[in-house]
Amino acid sequence: MNRPTMLRAFVSARSLRALLLVAGLSSGGIAAAQADPLPSWNEGAARKAIVSFVREATDPGSPRFVPAGERVATFDQDGTLWVEQPVYAQLVYCLDRVPALVKAKPELAGVEPFRTVLAGDRAAIAKLTAKDLERIAVATLTGMSVEDFQSDVRRWLQAARDPRWRRPYTDLTYQPMQELLRYLRANGFKTFIVTGGGQDFVRAYADEVYGIPPEQVVGTALETTYGYGKDGKPFLAKEPKLLLDDNDAGKPEGIHLMIGRRPRAAFGNSAGDRQMLEYTKAGDGARLAVIVLHDDARREYAYGPALGLPGTKVGAFPQELYEQAVKQGWVVVRMKEDWKRIFAFEPAPGEPAGRSGE
Amino acid sequence: MNRPTMLRAFVSARSLRALLLVAGLSSGGIAAAQADPLPSWNEGAARKAIVSFVREATDPGSPRFVPAGERVATFDQDGTLWVEQPVYAQLVYCLDRVPALVKAKPELAGVEPFRTVLAGDRAAIAKLTAKDLERIAVATLTGMSVEDFQSDVRRWLQAARDPRWRRPYTDLTYQPMQELLRYLRANGFKTFIVTGGGQDFVRAYADEVYGIPPEQVVGTALETTYGYGKDGKPFLAKEPKLLLDDNDAGKPEGIHLMIGRRPRAAFGNSAGDRQMLEYTKAGDGARLAVIVLHDDARREYAYGPALGLPGTKVGAFPQELYEQAVKQGWVVVRMKEDWKRIFAFEPAPGEPAGRSGE
Repeated sequence: MNRPTMLRAFVSARSLRALLLVAGLSSGGIAAAQADPLPSWNEGAARKAIVSFVREATDPGSPRFVPAGERVATFDQDGTLWVEQPVYAQLVYCLDRVPALVKAKPELAGVEPFRTVLAGDRAAIAKLTAKDLERIAVATLTGMSVEDFQSDVRRWLQAARDPRWRRPYTDLTYQPMQELLRYLRANGFKTFIVTGGGQDFVRAYADEVYGIPPEQVVGTALETTYGYGKDGKPFLAKEPKLLLDDNDAGKPEGIHLMIGRRPRAAFGNSAGDRQMLEYTKAGDGARLAVIVLHDDARREYAYGPALGLPGTKVGAFPQELYEQAVKQGWVVVRMKEDWKRIFAFEPAPGEPAGRSGE
Repeated sequence: MNRPTMLRAFVSARSLRALLLVAGLSSGGIAAAQADPLPSWNEGAARKAIVSFVREATDPGSPRFVPAGERVATFDQDGTLWVEQPVYAQLVYCLDRVPALVKAKPELAGVEPFRTVLAGDRAAIAKLTAKDLERIAVATLTGMSVEDFQSDVRRWLQAARDPRWRRPYTDLTYQPMQELLRYLRANGFKTFIVTGGGQDFVRAYADEVYGIPPEQVVGTALETTYGYGKDGKPFLAKEPKLLLDDNDAGKPEGIHLMIGRRPRAAFGNSAGDRQMLEYTKAGDGARLAVIVLHDDARREYAYGPALGLPGTKVGAFPQELYEQAVKQGWVVVRMKEDWKRIFAFEPAPGEPAGRSGE
């Protein structure tokens, strides 16, 4: 190697490092970019299909190349990015808020379903109907300013613990999906959450937990009303009136309203994601639809009822959805065989248990 | 300068150039970054206030520093980013679409207000009521898929000409505001349009015209319905039902729904922007509210009725709005004195007429 070449090599290495550092990537990021971007995924059809899609979409020589500005990927949250069993975290939040609600509105203390929740009778709470739960949700998610709600959700998330792992709910995100979010973003995709859960609830932590800012969270939304406080300052109050129901057909409708174009890739896990997945997959050019099947009772949960897995009230994956997935070429991710590890607090692949974790 | 220092200087210059090039900035971008970012703005209180706000928000040593992720700036469109007189471009689009609508639905040919529009009697069209115009808007903006609507708007924009300048409407964006959008983005702000106009209409050109992607356009929106075509393929149809009215209090409400946080900076020009501006300005820390006053009948239009300017049906700026702006410390931009040039097709400041333009 002659001197000018050495100089160029030196310059290039420094340029690259400066570039990556200024672009917000740490040295760890540089190493990771060179290493496997999906270390928690086993080799197999699912991983292969995802990687092929990304290569095809980002290769300027590919006939199915997708310009950077059009790379939109949408993710369901409950059961797709984090655990949804035995009940949605947001429902636990609503139940936990009932005492504060009754303190503010004592007339509710003797009224069902608030009385049952206050009494703390778990068996009775488990028997509440969908209508009861909706009443509780609407009452506990409204009547405050949007900022007060955000602060309250954040406080709750710090204190609340999932009953099985005894960890904050935000620890229960799936490590393979976290890697997928980062992998897609590193390849120029803008990542969105499209959840049947509450838009404002998920926005309270999505940036910190998934690196997804509030404006990239689409969810079920109640109306707000603009008004003025006693101090004359304007604020937005959360109202008990449904504005967007971001489930089923409401997902593609919400995507159009909030994002304005058909996604290139969509990720879901239940019947409520069907329309988002088929809408995404039906577009022209490179498209990816991925559905997660929970079939790992030991490491997480196993539920369907597709493929004979037990049925469940939360996040059902019926047999006809599985058949549609196969027919329309969606990628079915089987947690048991496709994911090396489920959570970041488990030992990393190849590491002995106990060395990793927190 | 000794050799190692020279080497470092050489490396730094190359690193910087490589960095900016890979980050998507052309050499022209490098030059522009060093030059005045707001060449079409005259020196004066408005420009000074805008630049001070940006410095304060982006200086990590400032007590009012705003972290990059929280830098949200919202812009009204009609009258703030482009010309809104004598009528909104979108209304012209709706009127122009009436013949195609009647061809598809011949029963409308004899029905008012469609009959008046078809007859082409300008005086009669000018007398149509707000209710008539709303009927025309709803009929011409619905009943097709979201993709077909986008294509139709794009076709129309290529053919249509503004009656005064005989140019495409998209040429009539304000050059000083285009510079401001780029200046804010160069300083880490995410720029959004928040318009009383149709969200899907503006999305059809906002990326190309303002560098603002569809998901960063908030506007008045009709519902869509998810369904399946004759070929079994899913699509979204535009429906004649109002979902979001993005005017007045609807602006902060729409901002919360679509963006999820209070803007740091907001830009408007009429009474319909009042709530967005006061909501933005009332937040903590560094905040900027800017309102554009059209007082230049020679180069653009002059209308108020604030400060004795003539009243208008489109984009009214009443006297009490001006008084609120002064009282609450909003920045009032006076086109006549604050803007060196209005449009990109005019000679650039300092250039002789005829050399610039197209």
